[in-house]
Amino acid sequence: MSEPLSNEAISAITAAVDAAFEDEIAFLQDIVRARSLRGEEAGVQKIIADALRDRAYDVETYGLDVAQLQSHPAYSPATIDYTDTFNVSGRKKSGHGGRSLILNAHVDVVPTANPANWTHPPFAAVREGDWLFGRGAGDMKAGLAANLFAVDAIEAAGFSLKGPLEFQSVIDEEVTGNGTAAAIMNGATADAVLIPEPTDEEVTYANSGVIKFRISVQGVPAHPREPESGLSAIEAAFLVINELKVLEARWNEEKTSHPGFDDLRNPASLNIGTINGGEWPASIPFECRFEGRIGFYPGDAPQDRMASLEQMLKTLGTKDPRLEKANPKLEWIGTCQAGYLLPEGSDAENALAAAHKITSETALKRSIMACYLDAALYVNHCGIPALTYGPLTKNIHGIDECVNLPSLKRVTKTIALFTAAWCGIAPT
Amino acid sequence: MSEPLSNEAISAITAAVDAAFEDEIAFLQDIVRARSLRGEEAGVQKIIADALRDRAYDVETYGLDVAQLQSHPAYSPATIDYTDTFNVSGRKKSGHGGRSLILNAHVDVVPTANPANWTHPPFAAVREGDWLFGRGAGDMKAGLAANLFAVDAIEAAGFSLKGPLEFQSVIDEEVTGNGTAAAIMNGATADAVLIPEPTDEEVTYANSGVIKFRISVQGVPAHPREPESGLSAIEAAFLVINELKVLEARWNEEKTSHPGFDDLRNPASLNIGTINGGEWPASIPFECRFEGRIGFYPGDAPQDRMASLEQMLKTLGTKDPRLEKANPKLEWIGTCQAGYLLPEGSDAENALAAAHKITSETALKRSIMACYLDAALYVNHCGIPALTYGPLTKNIHGIDECVNLPSLKRVTKTIALFTAAWCGIAPT
Repeated sequence: MSEPLSNEAISAITAAVDAAFEDEIAFLQDIVRARSLRGEEAGVQKIIADALRDRAYDVETYGLDVAQLQSHPAYSPATIDYTDTFNVSGRKKSGHGGRSLILNAHVDVVPTANPANWTHPPFAAVREGDWLFGRGAGDMKAGLAANLFAVDAIEAAGFSLKGPLEFQSVIDEEVTGNGTAAAIMNGATADAVLIPEPTDEEVTYANSGVIKFRISVQGVPAHPREPESGLSAIEAAFLVINELKVLEARWNEEKTSHPGFDDLRNPASLNIGTINGGEWPASIPFECRFEGRIGFYPGDAPQDRMASLEQMLKTLGTKDPRLEKANPKLEWIGTCQAGYLLPEGSDAENALAAAHKITSETALKRSIMACYLDAALYVNHCGIPALTYGPLTKNIHGIDECVNLPSLKRVTKTIALFTAAWCGIAPT
Repeated sequence: MSEPLSNEAISAITAAVDAAFEDEIAFLQDIVRARSLRGEEAGVQKIIADALRDRAYDVETYGLDVAQLQSHPAYSPATIDYTDTFNVSGRKKSGHGGRSLILNAHVDVVPTANPANWTHPPFAAVREGDWLFGRGAGDMKAGLAANLFAVDAIEAAGFSLKGPLEFQSVIDEEVTGNGTAAAIMNGATADAVLIPEPTDEEVTYANSGVIKFRISVQGVPAHPREPESGLSAIEAAFLVINELKVLEARWNEEKTSHPGFDDLRNPASLNIGTINGGEWPASIPFECRFEGRIGFYPGDAPQDRMASLEQMLKTLGTKDPRLEKANPKLEWIGTCQAGYLLPEGSDAENALAAAHKITSETALKRSIMACYLDAALYVNHCGIPALTYGPLTKNIHGIDECVNLPSLKRVTKTIALFTAAWCGIAPT
């Protein structure tokens, strides 16, 4: 059971969040401006490591060793090397008797598409009214700032934590989840994990399993004057994508046996995210590659879903004889992980709900996210309750991504009160 | 009327082709090895200019000046600059009284797709039995070699030409036709043109008009957990390509009023040659670009067909409301030229048929090519009969492109006899 916080402690901690909120926004702007596409996280990680050192965390930075990681079930196939990037971990020395907590956030961000389509440059971190704009502002540097300033507020209010706390700033969540996998391999463990992904102040009690793939199909090139002699690889790719849509429809039909997921229009949510084919406008294209993701339900083994996709590709020729020559080549290029499902009423969720109730005066809503979340690794591979709960955002992964600042303030308070209650506090 | 060649002249000229044929193959190998993708033709052009100088042609090399070219109707929209490449022209001083002739060939080649899929490396010019393999071996460096060694044979047989001859080695046929457009702007003119494209020893009496396009469509990016908020640009591209297929079907229906073309299964022959979209497997793609070509009939103004395609793109939203946001952007990226139609029984074609009859002992077959040919520029913009006639090949624009060497020898003889008869010969 959580230790109830005194009204005085609550007031002091939330007042401390209020007092430092302009600093929190300035820090968020700093880390948004430190553009951190996958593989390019070193710059922002250095800022975060310095911020932790300034706050007297015990700081550890460590790289990702794929040779070692790939033996762990939390590892997903990586398509980049991790030479120039690293995780950051900051530990607070604990008092006695409290429960332990990991505050986790990822710093990698997805590409921006054409910056010219943004109202504000995607890495300028422009503040406009109640919103802060920028790639990563919502997903999830705001959450990372909330973690940092939540712990600051507890200390500024005159308390130290009884239970041990680890602050994790991880890389490569957007493709693989290998940053958090490395944290787990590095020994991270706790009684609970909180990850402030952008959830509009709801707690995510389940997510989808996700597999990410690259498929290359071949055509038979020929001059357009005799197209019968060729097979367009782009045409073949369209046909394969149509078969993937059949798979998506079939997997969506299974939602009726997955409570919660049956409310989603499209839980499998096939996405073809990239396509590249051909080399010449007037030649029949020889090769076409596309990348995407598809989801499934908690409890499903990703290996089974991967096998279904492989099987579909093997039998393409029976769907359309033109595809017999398409010679599809499949690669796994990121997250291949199961979804998680957190039972209602856990101590950790109750503690979060209590903190949320104080800051938001509403009951905590539980919801599902039909996408990969690092929480899945802690829940599925470590048996740790991992709560995903973060601020209101708009357009994550899109144009004009932004985070709502009043929401960020509430979330910072909620995380501070949750942390204080979970780990326990003592006057310093 | 062509001057009939004496039997002695025929024997001497064809014997000279036989005698030099191993040299011709060696020369062809040299120019195949001089890889000449569009914009990279300078190396092979230097070899050809040297070969012409060695043969006492009057050699001129000249660049393409887009500012000047684009005022000419033979110009098609270029997407590269021509700084590092040039045309080569070689002129033979004439005697008196003969007709003039242009022997034209292009040296640019299309990309190879993955060289690993070739039996022999695409620029190794490997000879195997009756075939010489390589990108450009068929389309159309063999034809260029035939032009060169045909004139050599006439001279080696002890004759000079009465009428003026221009040997043209032009660039950038595969995308635009601007090499030949530049030759025309440079003042090239003659009573006939011969272009030994790979036609399997048939004469091409008509080709398609062709327009080449690049279309970019936009999506609305969003996170896959809420796909309803986004529109996939790759999905949008598929829908636009489907509308292009509707256009293709409609244009194909018109074939019934175009004799010759009504025998072709697919005269419009829409080809989507390249596609590139998205930047991230798990983001809904924001932009997708594809390039292609579509054909139409001789007598059709390309401007009208371009307008049809533009109109289709403007009304996409009426076909599918999802496409209202797709904001398609259209660029013309190469050939935008009408097709040509050569009436049967011209002096030039009769002269070619007579030469072909001698070397092949069969009547010359007339056929259509549903693709762009440089002959169209001479026919449509200069009113010059331009004959397209060349060797038997396999897999042009494909994997394992190759030219048949016995056919190349026959074609070299045919070109030699045609040239001798057309221009007239006198003993040297």
